Parts: sequence; C-alpha cells; structure tokens
Amino acid sequence: MRVVIIGGVATGPKVAARLRRLRQDAEIVIIEQGNLISYGGCGLPLYLGNMVPEMDDLMRTSTGVLRDREYFLKYKGIEVVTATRAERIERDKKRVTLRSLTTGETWSLDYDYLVLATGARPLQPPLPGVGLEGVFPLHHPDDAAAIRQLIRQKQVKNITIIGAGLIGLEVADALSHARVNVTVCESEGQVLPKLLDSDMAPLVAREMEKRHIGLRLGSLVTELEDDGKGRVCGVRSREERWAADLVIVSVGVRPNVHLAEEAGLSLGVAGAIRVDEHLQTDDPYIYAAGDCAEQKHRLTGQPVFIPLASTAAKQGRVIADRLAGLDSSFAGVEGTSVMQAFDLNVGRTGLTEEEAVKAGYDCVALVASGYDSTHYYALHAGIVLKLVAERTSGKLLGAQVCGLGDGIKRLDVLATALSFGATVRDLADLDLGYAPPFATAVDAVIQASYALENKRNGKVHSISARALRELIQAGTGPHVLDVREQDEVDADPLRVPNVIHMPLSRLRETYRDLPVSPGLVTFCGLGIRAYEAACFLQSKVKGDISFMEGGMAVWQAFT
Amino acid sequence: MRVVIIGGVATGPKVAARLRRLRQDAEIVIIEQGNLISYGGCGLPLYLGNMVPEMDDLMRTSTGVLRDREYFLKYKGIEVVTATRAERIERDKKRVTLRSLTTGETWSLDYDYLVLATGARPLQPPLPGVGLEGVFPLHHPDDAAAIRQLIRQKQVKNITIIGAGLIGLEVADALSHARVNVTVCESEGQVLPKLLDSDMAPLVAREMEKRHIGLRLGSLVTELEDDGKGRVCGVRSREERWAADLVIVSVGVRPNVHLAEEAGLSLGVAGAIRVDEHLQTDDPYIYAAGDCAEQKHRLTGQPVFIPLASTAAKQGRVIADRLAGLDSSFAGVEGTSVMQAFDLNVGRTGLTEEEAVKAGYDCVALVASGYDSTHYYALHAGIVLKLVAERTSGKLLGAQVCGLGDGIKRLDVLATALSFGATVRDLADLDLGYAPPFATAVDAVIQASYALENKRNGKVHSISARALRELIQAGTGPHVLDVREQDEVDADPLRVPNVIHMPLSRLRETYRDLPVSPGLVTFCGLGIRAYEAACFLQSKVKGDISFMEGGMAVWQAFT
Repeated sequence: MRVVIIGGVATGPKVAARLRRLRQDAEIVIIEQGNLISYGGCGLPLYLGNMVPEMDDLMRTSTGVLRDREYFLKYKGIEVVTATRAERIERDKKRVTLRSLTTGETWSLDYDYLVLATGARPLQPPLPGVGLEGVFPLHHPDDAAAIRQLIRQKQVKNITIIGAGLIGLEVADALSHARVNVTVCESEGQVLPKLLDSDMAPLVAREMEKRHIGLRLGSLVTELEDDGKGRVCGVRSREERWAADLVIVSVGVRPNVHLAEEAGLSLGVAGAIRVDEHLQTDDPYIYAAGDCAEQKHRLTGQPVFIPLASTAAKQGRVIADRLAGLDSSFAGVEGTSVMQAFDLNVGRTGLTEEEAVKAGYDCVALVASGYDSTHYYALHAGIVLKLVAERTSGKLLGAQVCGLGDGIKRLDVLATALSFGATVRDLADLDLGYAPPFATAVDAVIQASYALENKRNGKVHSISARALRELIQAGTGPHVLDVREQDEVDADPLRVPNVIHMPLSRLRETYRDLPVSPGLVTFCGLGIRAYEAACFLQSKVKGDISFMEGGMAVWQAFT
Repeated sequence: MRVVIIGGVATGPKVAARLRRLRQDAEIVIIEQGNLISYGGCGLPLYLGNMVPEMDDLMRTSTGVLRDREYFLKYKGIEVVTATRAERIERDKKRVTLRSLTTGETWSLDYDYLVLATGARPLQPPLPGVGLEGVFPLHHPDDAAAIRQLIRQKQVKNITIIGAGLIGLEVADALSHARVNVTVCESEGQVLPKLLDSDMAPLVAREMEKRHIGLRLGSLVTELEDDGKGRVCGVRSREERWAADLVIVSVGVRPNVHLAEEAGLSLGVAGAIRVDEHLQTDDPYIYAAGDCAEQKHRLTGQPVFIPLASTAAKQGRVIADRLAGLDSSFAGVEGTSVMQAFDLNVGRTGLTEEEAVKAGYDCVALVASGYDSTHYYALHAGIVLKLVAERTSGKLLGAQVCGLGDGIKRLDVLATALSFGATVRDLADLDLGYAPPFATAVDAVIQASYALENKRNGKVHSISARALRELIQAGTGPHVLDVREQDEVDADPLRVPNVIHMPLSRLRETYRDLPVSPGLVTFCGLGIRAYEAACFLQSKVKGDISFMEGGMAVWQAFT
C-alpha cells in the first residue's frame, strides 16, 4: 500500500507517524511545498516574544532532535519530499502530479490512498499598500524570523496589528514592550470577535489598555502608506492616520483547497474540503484533514471551519487508523479555543451566547467572578467565567473564561462535560480536586453552575455589566445598591448615577428606606454578596430586584 | 421553622448560609463546641509553611471580614452559639440538650430539623508517649498555632511525622527546611497508601528524598520517648530509634458520631453516620453531612468514608435545598483527592488499580509520561499519568497523577469524564483547549488514552517500571533495549543488567542482531519512542516484545 500525503506541517506527519506504527509495510510519502516540515506554528508568537529562544526549537522533538527529512526517514521510515508542489490529482488513475520548486521538474506518483493536508494560508485583505515592505502575515516561520530580525535591528518604533483575533492578540502581547508602540486595529466592535461574547471581550481589552496597547475597535483600515521607498510608514482608517513601520496582518486564514477543487472534490463551509466522519472526501481513496478541511460541530451537528493544531492531530490519527483498517472516526469539535495574552487565560468552548441565540436556542447565560485557588493562598488569582445553557433543559451550550487565574483548567472541565451532553446541574455534582493551592472548596465551575441554576430557575434575577451600563447610558438606569464595606468602596468606588451604599452587614437593619422604583440592582466585588443581598431584598421589598453578575471584577472593564 | 445545626466549621455554615438565601423566615441556629467557626482547616499546612501569613486569614472572607459570630448574625441573620456542646438528642421531642463549656449550664432547644455536622477528630494511635509535650495532631487551628510557635522559638531540630498520608506529606513539605531534620514514618510500604497505587507512590517518595526528608516506609512506630521532663525526645520503631523534639501524628480521622449513636441513628462504613442520597439519617427530621457522615461512591455505588471540604460544601447545599423544599440530592463522590507537596501535583480520581482489582473489575492500566505544555515553551514541566479502565468495555475506572507539571487540571478533566461514565475512547475525542503555554497539541490526557487503548486492544504489550524492576530483582529480567540517543544515555544511563543501547534512529537498520529471548523490553525517556520501537520490532522479530511505560521519567523512582 502506498499512501501519499500532501502537506508536511501538522496533519501530514501525524497521519504518517501513526500509520507507520500500525503498518510497518506501508509505503508512506509526504510531499511538502516548503522547505520546513513538522514545525510548531502555534509557537510563532512565543518566538516573537522570546519565550522560545530559537526558531529551531519549534522543529525539534522534546529530546532535541530536529524533525527534518532525515529524522522522518531514520526514525519512522517515512519519506518526505520537500520544496515540491502537488499540481494535479488524476483520481481515475489514482495518481498525483508533482513539481519540484527548485528544478521545475515534474513527475507523477501513483497512490493507493491520498491524504490532503494542505493547510491554510493567511487571508490578505485587498488593501492598498498590503504588499509594502514591513507588512507581514504571521503564519510561516519565515514571517516570524523576518519580524524578529526587523525588531532586533531596532528599526521599529510603531507596530500595528490588523485584526484582534487570537493570533493578533498573541502577537500584540509578544511585541508589547516599553521601546515600541503597539496598536491593534479591529473592524468589529470588540476584541476576539470569533472567540468571546461582547460582555466578556472588554475584560481582555481592559488588560491591553493597562499595558498601553493602543486599541482601535470598529476601525476599518483603508490603506497602508508608502514612505516613498516601498516601505510601510503609516496606517489609514476612515477616521484617522497613524505612523507604523511594522504592520502585521492577522485577519484569519483560508483553507488551501486549489488541488481538491481542481480534482472535483466537494467543498463545504468556508470553502474548506468537505469530509465525512471518517475524514473521507467524495472520493473513497482521498482523505482530507487539518486546516484545509471542515469539521462537524459536536453540539449543533453543523459543519464549521475552526482550524486548530489539536484538531489536526486528532484527525491525523483517525485517518491513519482508517488506512490501517481500524474502525475509527472523528467525533467533531466543540469550538474549544484558548490563548494566553497579557498574562490572561482566555478561552471558550461550545457556543457563545450570541452564537447560541443565532442557532435558535432559547438560552440563559451568566457571568460569574471567582478565584482559581483559595483566597488565603498567596498565589490565588481571579477568574471570570461565563456559562451558557439552554433555558428549559438546563443543557450546557458553552462557556467562556477570562482572567489572570487558571481559567483554562475550568474550560477543559467544561469542554469535557459538554462532550457528554452535560446539564448545568451535572456540573454542580462534579467531584473536582480540591486543595487550597488548586481550587476553592466550591470550585469556580461549580460556583458558576449554582449561580446559573438559581437564575434559570427564577430564584433570583440578575443583570450583566454590559446591560447595566447600557441602561445607565440610556438614562433609564435602576438604583444601584453597592453592598460592599466602606474600605472597599473607598479603595475602588462605583461611579454610576443613583448609587446607594449600604454594606451587606447593615442591610438587615436598614433596608426599609431603600428606593426600589424603577428597580434596584445590587452590586459588590465578585457578585456573591450582591446575590445574597438580592435574595434578602426580594423577600422583604416589593419591586424589581436583581444583582449585577460578576461584581467589580467585571464592571471595571465596562467603565 | 427552626433549624438547629450541630457543628460550625464547614458543613454547618454552608447549610445555614444557603438556607438563609432560600428562606429569609427560617430560624437558623449553629451550635459549635469550639470557639472558632467557619475556618479553612485545609489551609493549616500552608500556615505552617508560611504560605498563609496569619491564622486569621483562614477565618476571613475574601474581602477580609472575619467570619465570627457577629459576621453570621449581621451578614446572614444566623445565630451561632460557640463553646457549647450538644449533649443529647431527644428525637421524640425533637429537642437537643446543650451544655455551655464555659459556665457548665445546660438547656434544651427544640428543632423542626436538626443537622449533624459534627465533623471528625484525628485518630490517636494507642502509642506509649502519645500524650507527651511536643506531640501534636494537625487538625485544629490551635494545633497549628502551637506547632508554629514551637518552631519559631527555635526549639525544634528533629521533626517526625507519623503517617505518610495526604496531610502528613503536606506537613512534611511545609516544615522541610535546611534548619531542621524531617522524618516521615509510615507503617505501609509506600507513601500515600490511600491515594496512589504502589507504582505511582515512588514518584512522590523520590522527590522527598531529593529534599532530604527521611522516609521510613513499612516502619511501625512503637513508642515516643520521654526526655524525663514530660517532653518527647525520640521515636522508636521495631527496628530503630531516632531523635525527635516535635512529633506530628497524622494517621487519619474518625467521624464524631457519639451524639448520633446515642440517639439511635444508624452508623455505616467506618462508623460514620448512615445517610441516604438526600443526606437524611434514619430520622426524617435529622440530616447529617460532612466529615461525620458516609458518602456513596459514584462508581461502585458502595458507601465510603472520604472526608473532604469540597464534599462537605456540596452536601451542605443539598441539605439546605431539602429544608427549603427543593428537590436536591447528593450525587456521591468519586474519591477525587489532590495535594501539592514538594512542588508536585499529586492526586487521583475514581479507583486505583489496586482498588479496582479488589472491587472485582477485570482492569487494564497504564502509566504515561508527558508534559503539561509544549516542550518548546520555557515553563513546561512533566506529568506522569496513570489511567485505569475496565478491560472489555474500556470504561474509565480511575486516574492518578504525579509531577511538577499541571496534573491537577488533567485530573479534573478525568474526574469530569468519570462522572459521565466515559470510556477511554471518549477521552481521545475530547476537544480540550490547546495553546502552547497550556497544553501539548495532543494533551497528556489524550496521549495517555491513546496509549491505554493500544494496550487494551492488544496492539502492543507493555510493562510497568515496578514490574520490570521486580523481574530484574528476581533475576528473570528480559533484555532491555534503550532506544534513546547517545547524549541522553550519557547524561542519565539506564543501570540494569542485560541493557542494550540502540537508538531509535538506527533501529530500522540494526534490529536483526537483537536478542529477544526471554523477551525484550524497549525503553526511552517518556515511553513514546519505546512504544514506537516496540511497534516496529513486533512486526519484524518473533518474540515477546513490550515497552516500558513512562520511560526514564518513571524509572528514576524505581532505582
């Protein structure tokens, strides 16, 4: 059996390695158009930020062996042909035409099975000046090497990153330094528009502001300016112009499907190659996976295009299993995406509230603040967690996290629960590990699930920070009752109209004088005492009582 | 409705607080025999190790308010009576007799519902000298305060901890310091005998040895020696005697059930109060929870006694819900227990292999080494993960972790999966968060699940480090093929008889000369290349080929 794999970065090597372990007799050939193979592309922002010292580190095994052609041949008995492009597939002949990018020579190679692992390429917006010197995507190691060299030569003062997606923000974090000005420009009205709801994204934006990263939201770049010598010197949007001597364009990727399309294979969502649960294309002898193929969303059952290295790795294994005759299939994705930037843990799994509403779910959501470990443990840090659930069934639909604390752990727990169709009630029953350095006795996930169940069952009403801000801005704000203690209020006052301060410790004596029309929203540091106050007041006072979710830990981002 | 709660540390305040939020009109009284209430007992080892500066920190809310009687009254409308012991329950009259421990006065209190949250007390072994000065349990803040004072007065040179359980090791970690000698003494043949299998525990023991903590396993203490002035000065076991001026006895706890027993309530496993899923005792007006009550194990359905603060908190909520008329029940425990000591993440969920075998499961288990984040990320660290599954169904039965890396995150994922009856195959499909600082593209959990599935399906044979050591010690060892590169072998040679060195990079050329009788075990750094080598060899060579699980990362603990 000869298996030809087009693409040598992530999925391709994974298919090859697993197949080799299962079938020592298979002939396995990887065709890669570049010169580098099997590199950790996700580490490129870390390389820019010097958290990965050498580019080679991204291409070495954990024991330091360079994953080059020789490595694949000697360690795994896998042939890799680099600097060679697959030009055409003749499906009837089960043959692929190859062209050497060094000599121009072409030849063809027969296959029993073909695997398309052609990846994706960065989207290049049709922007005047996008081809200028000093304008880069960040996709290939060559891009990162060029950017780092430019910065090391100290020729860079003003960096603009176009696109506030996951990679854009990782790059902003990596390059943020006292010596340079970093500006991030995003056409949508929030950072991470594909990752977070608009009531979570400001938590990230606030952290960027603290680090003096210029953030231009809702700002469409119209032109990159030429300095007259073919180098970029500025960025123009509809409203303004600012200086830039390095521009990184990070507005997403597009699947590489030219070869598949020419061969008449069906394309699916986002123009990615359509595959079934076995990662088979229309052609039973051709598989596709990784960043060039669509995935099925486990929650909605709908095809999606969420290119990720972790997905590519799992898919590669499935293809190898199938080729070796094992019954294996790819379960799909939940849209789990995480990142570290500005010391924050940021991520989501499942659907955002906005996506869930769009998908037709009647949903209920809640933002909760908590800590990643006991507050008396010196190294604890905050987490903001948003849970989204179906209103009637209580089925978990998705979760988002943001905070300095270990939120990704909680996200992994939620991603796991999601894959089993968990309800929010199921989360409350989880027997998670508790010790003071690792969690609170009631873990942040469980605490949030309690709060969402209280809300879903109508035990208490709540309002999000964003909604409260909108009401206040519209001049129709309710009274806000700050139940924090005096020292907390002094340290960090709540600056809104109609604020009343009455510490929870005195509420039971003094609540009778409270104005409750047109409504009263309780407020505290994390939202927990505010909830407690709301529980008390709604039993004592007639009126529209609710608490603000997440407390000052969230509100800070909305002021 | 008057609810009387006996016990004011963990479960009691939790019941009271939730019940207050649900029912503003309930009369809630907590009776506590001590002077302190609602303290974070799990933080006492951290206090000893100065990771919690002041004892009060364990009794304050996250905003710094001391959780004393006044706090419960003013913030929550809950009455707390301290220094008062509940002496007798008259179930027919629904009345409890109380005695003030300060004045000796007795009185009785009628209840509509009674909650027993009487906790547990440290087991005191019947040991000569156990009552000497300088001998302490570590259970109450007073114990910790006395120990810390003794150490601060610099009167302590030699500390012995009796019991290498979770708290014993947390204390050993907290007190290990260049200025003192710390010895841990355990009657069983391993550390953490209730937490880890015997093939995982040596990973912890090795770390203790690195820190110069004296470890005496299988060593039964027979006497604590008196210095003639009523102070402890030494410890004797059957075999030896050593100096000790501070002894901490940490050999487990026993539930406080005197009150329940006298009232004729049934006791269950380990003598703890028997309760149903609603945490109700035999008496429909009496609930019990926390460290004084048994729990149901979610996997086996059997009653167990695993006292933990996280369980107490969840149970407290369930009782409050029931008292408020809500339909709520306690799902049970999975035996999840975690700890941090010697910089290690250590923990388990579900059944250990030894427990699973004892419970009658036909099980298959595997130890896997990996990293908590990408190896090119500067801050990555190692994880050793053990998975236990039912052989035929592949159903996950339990997991254990140990390592400097973030293993507790993986354990929480596994605990979550376990609660949904996951199979090992389900784990392989998890869409966990991947970014280089948080995980590897194939997360350690998924990697381990792959490996266990390969083993379970008979694709490859493996042997644990412990089993290999036993074979070698018995003189019936197989040939061991070390497939690491020369530089790795030079840095950290494998010192066993019959070792052959042949790097994986040369194996495909040179395998023909290998001796395979009476068997060949491949070996590497983490077990991954050894697996790969075994896959290759078993297709090429007739003979009994297997790989050693976990590689040098595990083997180090067995030499």
